Amino acid sequence: MVQVNENYLKLKAGYLFPEISKRVKLHSQKVNSSDLIKLGIGDVTEPLPKACIDAMNNALLEMGTNEGFKGYGPEQGYQWLREKIAKNDYLDRGCQILPEEIFVSDGSKCDSSNILDILGEDNSIAVTDPVYPVYVDSNVMSGRTGKPSSEGGYEGLTYIPINEDNNFKPKIPTRKVDILYLCFPNNPTGAVISKVELKRWVDYANNNNSLIFFDAAYEAFIQDESLPHSIYEIEGAKNCAIEFRSFSKNAGFTGVRCAFTVIPKTLQGLTLDNEEIDLWSLWNRRQSTKFNGVNYIVQRGAEAVYSPQGKIQVKNLIDFYMNNADIMRCELQKLGFKVFGGLNAPYVWIKVPDGMSSWDFFDYLLEKANVVGTPGSGFGMAGEGYFRLSAFNSLLNVRNAMNRISTI
Amino acid sequence: MVQVNENYLKLKAGYLFPEISKRVKLHSQKVNSSDLIKLGIGDVTEPLPKACIDAMNNALLEMGTNEGFKGYGPEQGYQWLREKIAKNDYLDRGCQILPEEIFVSDGSKCDSSNILDILGEDNSIAVTDPVYPVYVDSNVMSGRTGKPSSEGGYEGLTYIPINEDNNFKPKIPTRKVDILYLCFPNNPTGAVISKVELKRWVDYANNNNSLIFFDAAYEAFIQDESLPHSIYEIEGAKNCAIEFRSFSKNAGFTGVRCAFTVIPKTLQGLTLDNEEIDLWSLWNRRQSTKFNGVNYIVQRGAEAVYSPQGKIQVKNLIDFYMNNADIMRCELQKLGFKVFGGLNAPYVWIKVPDGMSSWDFFDYLLEKANVVGTPGSGFGMAGEGYFRLSAFNSLLNVRNAMNRISTI
Repeated sequence: MVQVNENYLKLKAGYLFPEISKRVKLHSQKVNSSDLIKLGIGDVTEPLPKACIDAMNNALLEMGTNEGFKGYGPEQGYQWLREKIAKNDYLDRGCQILPEEIFVSDGSKCDSSNILDILGEDNSIAVTDPVYPVYVDSNVMSGRTGKPSSEGGYEGLTYIPINEDNNFKPKIPTRKVDILYLCFPNNPTGAVISKVELKRWVDYANNNNSLIFFDAAYEAFIQDESLPHSIYEIEGAKNCAIEFRSFSKNAGFTGVRCAFTVIPKTLQGLTLDNEEIDLWSLWNRRQSTKFNGVNYIVQRGAEAVYSPQGKIQVKNLIDFYMNNADIMRCELQKLGFKVFGGLNAPYVWIKVPDGMSSWDFFDYLLEKANVVGTPGSGFGMAGEGYFRLSAFNSLLNVRNAMNRISTI
Repeated sequence: MVQVNENYLKLKAGYLFPEISKRVKLHSQKVNSSDLIKLGIGDVTEPLPKACIDAMNNALLEMGTNEGFKGYGPEQGYQWLREKIAKNDYLDRGCQILPEEIFVSDGSKCDSSNILDILGEDNSIAVTDPVYPVYVDSNVMSGRTGKPSSEGGYEGLTYIPINEDNNFKPKIPTRKVDILYLCFPNNPTGAVISKVELKRWVDYANNNNSLIFFDAAYEAFIQDESLPHSIYEIEGAKNCAIEFRSFSKNAGFTGVRCAFTVIPKTLQGLTLDNEEIDLWSLWNRRQSTKFNGVNYIVQRGAEAVYSPQGKIQVKNLIDFYMNNADIMRCELQKLGFKVFGGLNAPYVWIKVPDGMSSWDFFDYLLEKANVVGTPGSGFGMAGEGYFRLSAFNSLLNVRNAMNRISTI
């Protein structure tokens, strides 16, 4: 019989969100499920920007005509989209990123796990704790970790805590790590990183020949103008960092699927013979062989994000969700909760009441207030004792959720 | 410095299609490129069916409203699409495939390479020769082969020739192979497999505990009603086969991106401890962790393929391309070429004139007739001496191409 990939057996029973679904489903059998307010999963709720709808509508019309029909597009994305991204997201912020260094894809979840394809299996890996579970699970599945450890993580992975003790600033490792995952504004804690702090990580990476995976999926939520939107705003980052970006959270493309990954041509890796080889070429080969590009209509929609109307509409979306985050932060603080994040990120990170675990608090909010959040411990050991609420919902639902929490 | 995946270094210089592009580009500098007729890459040219356009248009409108907006969909695809596929592609042909056994994705190219993620690295692999290059390259990239061999393939892979000597019927291996790739109607040769012949493969797989990857991307082109459209039409296949299907070639979704993979729940693999584990669960976990589902609008478009109007329009598309294939087959035969395929597949497989290699003939057609095809040797060693022409083009271009070839 065919042998399976043994590494899958190391995975802990449930991915966080399926476990939440299970508990919510069970609860829904007891109550009117339309009363349930979901502030759990980080999924947007507002309609797509009109500029995107219009652009996609035009593209769809083209696809119905002989002259306008498009078959396979470039696996790396259409040049016109890559140019718009390079100009607006990078050149306009002073980052010298070329269109060719931008690979358009159907999602950051795919890219941030598929990127491991081009790297050796013996690289040492560090993640923050708590962390977006996909970073960890994709490493487990590809055999880059040991078994689950007794502390709750996986053997072989380095965990860098981010919590109250370090003011949500991950501490730079004292020993060499080959690959570092950083996500700022942070999912799940909503923490941010300053240019000065990020410079220390870039310097560490360049001094140790490490590679940083920088997930900037939430950059659009940054309100503080001094904060970096891209790691390439930091000098030296083009020699040590791959950046993941997405249209999911700025333009609400979670159901549309478009993202991109930046691999500067200056980034090098090493063969076993100690020869340098550029990572751009390897990723280009990976994408050409294992991926067939993103839907033409979707790429036209993504392009419209950079139009004058698109920019205004995306800003309005961000403002809308950040207003939700403000309300949540203020109300929860009034109720005596210790609240973090929510200032430059759509996530509010709450310290759960003394004596309760993250899952206790999950069950408590679900039972008493009909509100769904995400237990911090689902994001890692150091997330225990915390709880994530997402600002992605209607204003009415956010207000109602806060009212309910205030009366339990 | 970060270590790269050493297996990428084993890959031979160019993927076939980039090499073709390079030569065409060079040639285009000498001639009027609008004169060029491209019958090379297997990309459709006709507009999307109206039923699909209409359904996508409706879905797009929904995405612009609060009530109709859809965020993340299920990673496995929406239930309504999985049900339509199960009924129309399987139940109606007598195959007991459940909706849950169907995983909707953004492409068969992705699925047929990503499927290796869930399997052990020591399984022995067999491919036909010639073969769709992605099967081979994805095995090379994931370390399942040795280096390129002196014969032109890769060490460690078993190659099963399909050519004139065996009447384009691949011979069943005499020793045990763990994983077998089969593609019928075949890309690139246009060959087909009968139910009796396919039953022999299924029996071999069940007797040897092998797993068949069955690529049925071209099933819609089958004209001979006795031929199987799915491997599950063969008794026992649910215990030994994974099937890949796509909307790319039937409904012209190459630029839209939608496909699906069928993993019967009865399929088992083995752990190192010799415990059986079902492949469905592993793939479900893989997709949940590393994939975020297909665009909602696209899935509505795919659903429309199964509407009464959609079925008629898809049939018209197929008839259109098959008429092209007929013209090509007949004209080329008149000119004295030995021609294979093109009866139940959109590909015509030509024996190149004596004394010429596949690439010689490529250059010859390009120079003399301004026609682009695909050299058979690009698909594998046993493809040497053959040449693929695709029926995906306008009737006018196909006629012109044949006229030009007849006068050189």
